[in-house]
Amino acid sequence: MSASAPSGRPAALLFDVFGTVVDWRTGVAREAAPFLARHGLDADAYAFADAWRDRYQPAMEEVRSGRRPFVRLDVLHRENLEATLRELGADLGQIPGEELDALNTAWHRLDPWPDAVAGLTRLRARCIVAPLSNGNVALLLNMAKRAGLPWDAILGAEVVRAYKPAREAYLRTADLLTLPPAECMMVAAHNSDLRAARAAGLATAFVPRPAEQGPGQTTDLVPEEDWDLVVPDFIELAERLGA
Amino acid sequence: MSASAPSGRPAALLFDVFGTVVDWRTGVAREAAPFLARHGLDADAYAFADAWRDRYQPAMEEVRSGRRPFVRLDVLHRENLEATLRELGADLGQIPGEELDALNTAWHRLDPWPDAVAGLTRLRARCIVAPLSNGNVALLLNMAKRAGLPWDAILGAEVVRAYKPAREAYLRTADLLTLPPAECMMVAAHNSDLRAARAAGLATAFVPRPAEQGPGQTTDLVPEEDWDLVVPDFIELAERLGA
Repeated sequence: MSASAPSGRPAALLFDVFGTVVDWRTGVAREAAPFLARHGLDADAYAFADAWRDRYQPAMEEVRSGRRPFVRLDVLHRENLEATLRELGADLGQIPGEELDALNTAWHRLDPWPDAVAGLTRLRARCIVAPLSNGNVALLLNMAKRAGLPWDAILGAEVVRAYKPAREAYLRTADLLTLPPAECMMVAAHNSDLRAARAAGLATAFVPRPAEQGPGQTTDLVPEEDWDLVVPDFIELAERLGA
Repeated sequence: MSASAPSGRPAALLFDVFGTVVDWRTGVAREAAPFLARHGLDADAYAFADAWRDRYQPAMEEVRSGRRPFVRLDVLHRENLEATLRELGADLGQIPGEELDALNTAWHRLDPWPDAVAGLTRLRARCIVAPLSNGNVALLLNMAKRAGLPWDAILGAEVVRAYKPAREAYLRTADLLTLPPAECMMVAAHNSDLRAARAAGLATAFVPRPAEQGPGQTTDLVPEEDWDLVVPDFIELAERLGA
């Protein structure tokens, strides 16, 4: 590894969450399916999850660009949900707000990939493990309690008031841990996240998640740079870090 | 209880840490004793811990009053350490900065009261449990990892950029959890903390810690208001909350 604690192991492992730790597509589709059926909306639940997720980066870009003050991801998800439903021809006046709120928190109830809890549990015995996610604190905390993700702290965009891949998101998180960026390792299934983390001075680990975007996934199947570690799952990450 | 989740149990329990969860006086004295001996400083280690702690509220008041921008508690502790040592007649030019840094992080290595881990572990199965402490994130995280405190998240002054008992410290923490203040219960050994929490709309639990300030403690031995719960320790807190 190019950057690590004196032991050869980073002091902190910071995890991307949506796609890297949890399977957002399956989880959102699972909760969207009965909602769509109940409201007579003719859409495949996976296509609906994809359409909702497609609005994620543009919504955060409004904040990253400075055009909009920071708002938590729950708020962006809720706006994006309404836009996605309108696009499907839904009459939002006919859907109780509580139902929209309930579907919106599907993002709080995503299941981890099969290796995630076991790998994190091993890693936690040797390093600080925390999310560095664009999800907000309540979302990540509710997800962790439901799924048993053994985080040491809930970090991420809401705490540092910056959405990845903004440089500040990485630097302020390392600063909160009072660690030099080089003693923090970003773990992600997305090359773009690792590129921004590396540019901020963090070490990097790539864990491809080839099913994240469903059967037709064409991106993030392979490492696009010489990341410090490339491993198939969190168990192997623990092995490689001696945890 | 006057304020609670529909089940009769708060959704989140927010804990004061120094004094309520951990025994700061014994822990600081334990690490100060060899330091004082090594540098030929003639001071009782407990008196030294008390003198260091005496500078805690005035230092935070500089931030609460707006006279100083927010800085994390590690920084205030370090300044207060130097002032305390100077008051003892120490020549700070003769003490390596690394030794001061090491003693400063004694606050990261405090031991919990005997009931704390067992009580928190039970409570965590039923509620969100998190510190709402004036300690900074790294301090609270390092303390939790060393002591096995099973927090769901590390919250507190640094995350919300406000030191208790400022009203914002309580309100912003509830907001991060996306909970109404009334669904959060502040747990503290200090009546002043609970007064501010109640004024912000939180439920309150008083857990006296009569040994916090040593054998001569005269304050916070009894509840000064009709707090929602008054319990001798975290085990009884778990009992009372059905956890």
